[in-house]
Amino acid sequence: MADKQPRIVIVGAGFGGIALAKQFAREDVQVTIIDRHNFHLFQPLLYQVSTAILSEDEIAYPIRTFFRDNANVEFFMAKAQGVDAERHVVLTDHGEVPYDYVILAAGATTNFFGMENVEKHSFGMKTLAEATHIRNHVLHMFERANKELVDAEERKRMLTFVVVGGGATGIEEAGALTELIQVLQKEFHHLDFSQVSVHLLEAMDTVLPMVSPNLQKHTIEVLKKKGVHVHLQAQVADYDGKAITFKDGTQLQTRTVIWAAGIKAVPFVANCGGQTGRGGRIIVDEQLRVEGVKDVFAIGDCAYFQHGTPRALPTVAPVATQEAKVAFRNVMKLVHGQQELEAFHYKDLGSMATIGRGEAVVNKTKINPELTGFIAWCAWMFVHLLRLAGAHTNVTVAMKWCWNLFSGTRLGRIITNIQD
Amino acid sequence: MADKQPRIVIVGAGFGGIALAKQFAREDVQVTIIDRHNFHLFQPLLYQVSTAILSEDEIAYPIRTFFRDNANVEFFMAKAQGVDAERHVVLTDHGEVPYDYVILAAGATTNFFGMENVEKHSFGMKTLAEATHIRNHVLHMFERANKELVDAEERKRMLTFVVVGGGATGIEEAGALTELIQVLQKEFHHLDFSQVSVHLLEAMDTVLPMVSPNLQKHTIEVLKKKGVHVHLQAQVADYDGKAITFKDGTQLQTRTVIWAAGIKAVPFVANCGGQTGRGGRIIVDEQLRVEGVKDVFAIGDCAYFQHGTPRALPTVAPVATQEAKVAFRNVMKLVHGQQELEAFHYKDLGSMATIGRGEAVVNKTKINPELTGFIAWCAWMFVHLLRLAGAHTNVTVAMKWCWNLFSGTRLGRIITNIQD
Repeated sequence: MADKQPRIVIVGAGFGGIALAKQFAREDVQVTIIDRHNFHLFQPLLYQVSTAILSEDEIAYPIRTFFRDNANVEFFMAKAQGVDAERHVVLTDHGEVPYDYVILAAGATTNFFGMENVEKHSFGMKTLAEATHIRNHVLHMFERANKELVDAEERKRMLTFVVVGGGATGIEEAGALTELIQVLQKEFHHLDFSQVSVHLLEAMDTVLPMVSPNLQKHTIEVLKKKGVHVHLQAQVADYDGKAITFKDGTQLQTRTVIWAAGIKAVPFVANCGGQTGRGGRIIVDEQLRVEGVKDVFAIGDCAYFQHGTPRALPTVAPVATQEAKVAFRNVMKLVHGQQELEAFHYKDLGSMATIGRGEAVVNKTKINPELTGFIAWCAWMFVHLLRLAGAHTNVTVAMKWCWNLFSGTRLGRIITNIQD
Repeated sequence: MADKQPRIVIVGAGFGGIALAKQFAREDVQVTIIDRHNFHLFQPLLYQVSTAILSEDEIAYPIRTFFRDNANVEFFMAKAQGVDAERHVVLTDHGEVPYDYVILAAGATTNFFGMENVEKHSFGMKTLAEATHIRNHVLHMFERANKELVDAEERKRMLTFVVVGGGATGIEEAGALTELIQVLQKEFHHLDFSQVSVHLLEAMDTVLPMVSPNLQKHTIEVLKKKGVHVHLQAQVADYDGKAITFKDGTQLQTRTVIWAAGIKAVPFVANCGGQTGRGGRIIVDEQLRVEGVKDVFAIGDCAYFQHGTPRALPTVAPVATQEAKVAFRNVMKLVHGQQELEAFHYKDLGSMATIGRGEAVVNKTKINPELTGFIAWCAWMFVHLLRLAGAHTNVTVAMKWCWNLFSGTRLGRIITNIQD
């Protein structure tokens, strides 16, 4: 009996993958989720781990816990390597996983646009390990600068922090860094903080491309007020771990480059039989099927969907979760022998970014055109707390945010990568 | 003026070191704390990080935060390597730190008693990194066993967990592991949990040497009730990562050995001019001065104090914090030109260990001879919450313990050591 259940395989346990699995869990199907991590990561709050506001496990939720009561959902911890559509198996580093239908919801990774030196020396902002590395590194820079009594140039380089990319992640990271530095300033009694600086680099001529020019201007003003040096039209050409070289030949001395300037689909989707478009995303038809490959669907950051829109849909969580609903319904139609599938239509619900303690911008397309300041920050907090998985996580996170708002202290400032 | 302040150097930011620095902070002296980590670690709760109850930053507190308002206290992040008493400098991997008086409060490390294979293949339980390694490894064993469909012997080896050492740490770790396994059992829908076992090995003929025979018996009973296989008089001779070999030649197949069977002083104290005793601890006189070395004191786990007691004082936090008071007063006497120093006398305040959710044993030497069960667990919780540093930490920890008590869930079950 159980052998006759259709086997649904979902690759990736991000927003899209978890949304899919929750729907399939209620159906008479066998579900396998493949992910290389055993947790779902709440990526929008990675910057808070990287700046010592939250703990790792507050934004990471065990995948199995979602499906505790669903015996038909199995988790398979492995790194997906491709899809063999002929043989109907997903290839992984822990063997093959057979499927009747597979949905790729594998997400994206950092795009260094081929600059190998930059990739080697700077920090990505996509994984939990990367966020922890940033926290450890930034705190370490202060400890090292504090001990560096001879080489003033090197000390300044250690105290110069650069975030590349004026999207939500870059804005949030730069804003949170300035606040972290304020906390540190109270505790380094002998370090000259006039030497400390935070820089935000953006290749275009403005930040946050998805919000109105008005909000863009406001964001830059708030960042500047927080002490962030905002460099627009600043195109990075190289970084050797000590100095950034710009396209125009000028340099910026720094020991810290956090790269939030671009993403691309995880590379394995190129090995799934379909064609890839811009950003390495796998091209899907209006029904979210990988074009030209039977029984394979794709959603979210790893899928290239361009039907009725001037560009491919953006790589944001709402696209993935909306696509998850349609992909689910379409797979179930096939399971039930129907061939007429539903086309996907994206509803843009607006966007938001926080610029630090008590400051945010919200671009809401319908109800209210735009919000800024404390009220926007409350909206941001509310939306993110609602979406965070897990009862005790929500409560401890809410508590830490309140504590952080009122006291300005950050107790997560521990350096954990010391050996022995 | 500031240059004339006596320079007090404290090596180690454990219970003893922090207690010392807090006292010196109020005096007209310059204080430097040296530690290789930037945080004070609440070691008694390491087992809770290793079993996914608490987050890392809930038992680690930034050292600088203690001394935010004390401009005369400086933190120096480095690994101490020795003391040059002639030149009055502490040697570190980041250069020399001059002192007028130095107090060694550097703590202890795991003692594998010269068994190199055991050291190579098993997990210590003394550092935050080790606790996180244990959590990652144990969770990984379940994920790997779940995928191991061919080799039944290997699967069983992965599901066999061994804790060596019947002291408080070993007891607590074994108890917490059985509870973690109960949580996992609800979420691995296809794994045979009759194959899972937890073993506690103790070389002596009983556990918890510091409590009464009555409490020892009770502890073993509670452990057995929780499903722990308690092996007394079990002496480990070797471990190759797959099987433990006992002194009597028998073997136990396992992929996981957690070594809580012994500690020794951190090795650098042997390089401080004095003599070392049992466990590599540096021998101190009744006034806590390192014997034969001027202006060098030692307290806590790294100090060997045996005056009026049949054995050296035990390596527990109360010894360190009580010694910190006398060492402080004695150093201040020297600062003020007095030569008559105070002798140290230890007050044994009893001991406690928790055996899991709602179960503990408390051996109180004076007020109440002994406590067990839920009331003992409440006492344990109360004492540990009181001693935990940091306001928000206490509250989130208290909340997680309540959540854990009532729901039995552990949301910290994330595997964080995956490299892409």
